[in-house]
Amino acid sequence: MDELELIDRFFRPLAGEGALGLLDDAGFVSPSSDRDLVVTKDMIAEGVHFLPGDPPETVARKALRVNLSDLAAKGAKPLGYLLALAQTPGCDEAWLRAFCDGLASDQERYRISLIGGDTIASPDRVTVSITAIGTLPKGRMVHRSGAKAGDILYLSGTIGGSGAGLAILQNRADADLLADDRAQLVLRYREPQPRTDLAEAVCRHASAALDISDGLAGDADKLASASGIRAVIEAQNVPLDPALSQLFGHGFSLEEALTGGDDYEILAAIPPGEEGGFKEAAARADIPVTAIGCVEAGGDRAVILKDGQEMAFSHRSFVHGSH
Amino acid sequence: MDELELIDRFFRPLAGEGALGLLDDAGFVSPSSDRDLVVTKDMIAEGVHFLPGDPPETVARKALRVNLSDLAAKGAKPLGYLLALAQTPGCDEAWLRAFCDGLASDQERYRISLIGGDTIASPDRVTVSITAIGTLPKGRMVHRSGAKAGDILYLSGTIGGSGAGLAILQNRADADLLADDRAQLVLRYREPQPRTDLAEAVCRHASAALDISDGLAGDADKLASASGIRAVIEAQNVPLDPALSQLFGHGFSLEEALTGGDDYEILAAIPPGEEGGFKEAAARADIPVTAIGCVEAGGDRAVILKDGQEMAFSHRSFVHGSH
Repeated sequence: MDELELIDRFFRPLAGEGALGLLDDAGFVSPSSDRDLVVTKDMIAEGVHFLPGDPPETVARKALRVNLSDLAAKGAKPLGYLLALAQTPGCDEAWLRAFCDGLASDQERYRISLIGGDTIASPDRVTVSITAIGTLPKGRMVHRSGAKAGDILYLSGTIGGSGAGLAILQNRADADLLADDRAQLVLRYREPQPRTDLAEAVCRHASAALDISDGLAGDADKLASASGIRAVIEAQNVPLDPALSQLFGHGFSLEEALTGGDDYEILAAIPPGEEGGFKEAAARADIPVTAIGCVEAGGDRAVILKDGQEMAFSHRSFVHGSH
Repeated sequence: MDELELIDRFFRPLAGEGALGLLDDAGFVSPSSDRDLVVTKDMIAEGVHFLPGDPPETVARKALRVNLSDLAAKGAKPLGYLLALAQTPGCDEAWLRAFCDGLASDQERYRISLIGGDTIASPDRVTVSITAIGTLPKGRMVHRSGAKAGDILYLSGTIGGSGAGLAILQNRADADLLADDRAQLVLRYREPQPRTDLAEAVCRHASAALDISDGLAGDADKLASASGIRAVIEAQNVPLDPALSQLFGHGFSLEEALTGGDDYEILAAIPPGEEGGFKEAAARADIPVTAIGCVEAGGDRAVILKDGQEMAFSHRSFVHGSH
């Protein structure tokens, strides 16, 4: 199938405003005058960020959602995305159909559309690069660097589930999990849930935020380093995926939950005066948020305490493809 | 080297406005209220769009420039870009240094900067995906679809040189070329020259335009199809790279020049009343432009005439990686 036919049959139905039916050299974005654009670009590759044999619709969703997660953490509402797909000979019509179905359902879910992109042939490895574009009021992007002493650290959802899902898929975790729990953890790894609906609350109330993609410990370090503060987190306050307790001692540990990848939750620093507003906005968005620690002056890293002692980790950040 | 060190040592010096030092989840663009943004995303892969062993600085420039070429064809001035690099174990410090030097010199040349991106590990194949962002006055993007009967077709520069450069690198073309001509053709393949300085002339005067990346014949078909017109081109008027004549009959042909890839010239449809203005603007930008044909009503493809007869081609479009 040549590229024109590929676009015509599979990708054109995904094209939205500014995409010109994917028939042009480029797409366009016409932002209203009171908005900034937030742009982010993450690439995922077979055997590194997803496993050979992962369902194509989950590969598509993962590629898209890791980018939407970045937008949410900056307080931006997603607008659209560009896609570059390096496809192998194994990407037959059924694969492409499922891949595009995965994108289509997410376009509806997150109210976005495809603006442009590229497809190339790759002999041996599927690679997906997505650039996502979001908007927010001018000058209001939430940086990693704005946390101040006295802010409270809030985390959305739960962590550890995705790392446990990967451990299960790689046969490293061996508990006799209930089938439902197993499926839910694997889904957590394959299909992150970007906190798009929390973006407005982050934009209005957070002094700093980032998304947890490489493990809570290492990502909290990044927030602390960018802000020039010490992030103090109480491990007992960190909400873990409920299915994890069955795995602890069976190939998976609390340390792995705190340093595993692909959680895609948001860690936000909320000034004391904004706490009420943030919690109310999160509740309206139906997203659980939990206070897990606080910001102290001085330092440039995170400290995770358990029973009053700082936890030590062999690696604080998850490196994709290292397991 | 972990990703933080990689960013710190190699990519941070490339970061410009909106990139936040590449220390955040995303970058931002704050366009002025009278501008639209044009966005394009092309991916290139080792062994498909460039050859293993190509100098890393030319790989970087090619990845960037194929995108800048799209912007120029739409009449947009480049603003910045996002980069995703899948690097192999062979991408050592010297490789990365040269790759980033290639980007740095082009940033200066085209007055752009890096806004954001991603680096991932790839076991076996360097892949570079770039999203370029340009700006132009609101509503003024030049589409492929605007050509009207009576318009004159103009081509920038010359074509065929890049295809000949690839044929030389692949030992398919065997003429006893002068060393200078050989080097110039190979450079043409490795380092396209996007017609950035022609963008304003295109924006002001063209009814339709696109960049020639997959061969003049096939790309003229695309303009014709999008506009619902017949593009009639006289082969004798098409300016060819001057070094080509030495190769004709020695493994390279006029047909290959008209259907080879990677020319990155601009084909523009200019209404008769705009011809003077377009030629003057091109001359001010110091870019040669040549009238190569005209637009006729009806049809949806290009016709390339030689001695009054339509030329036949085994393939009208170049497929990257097919040679």
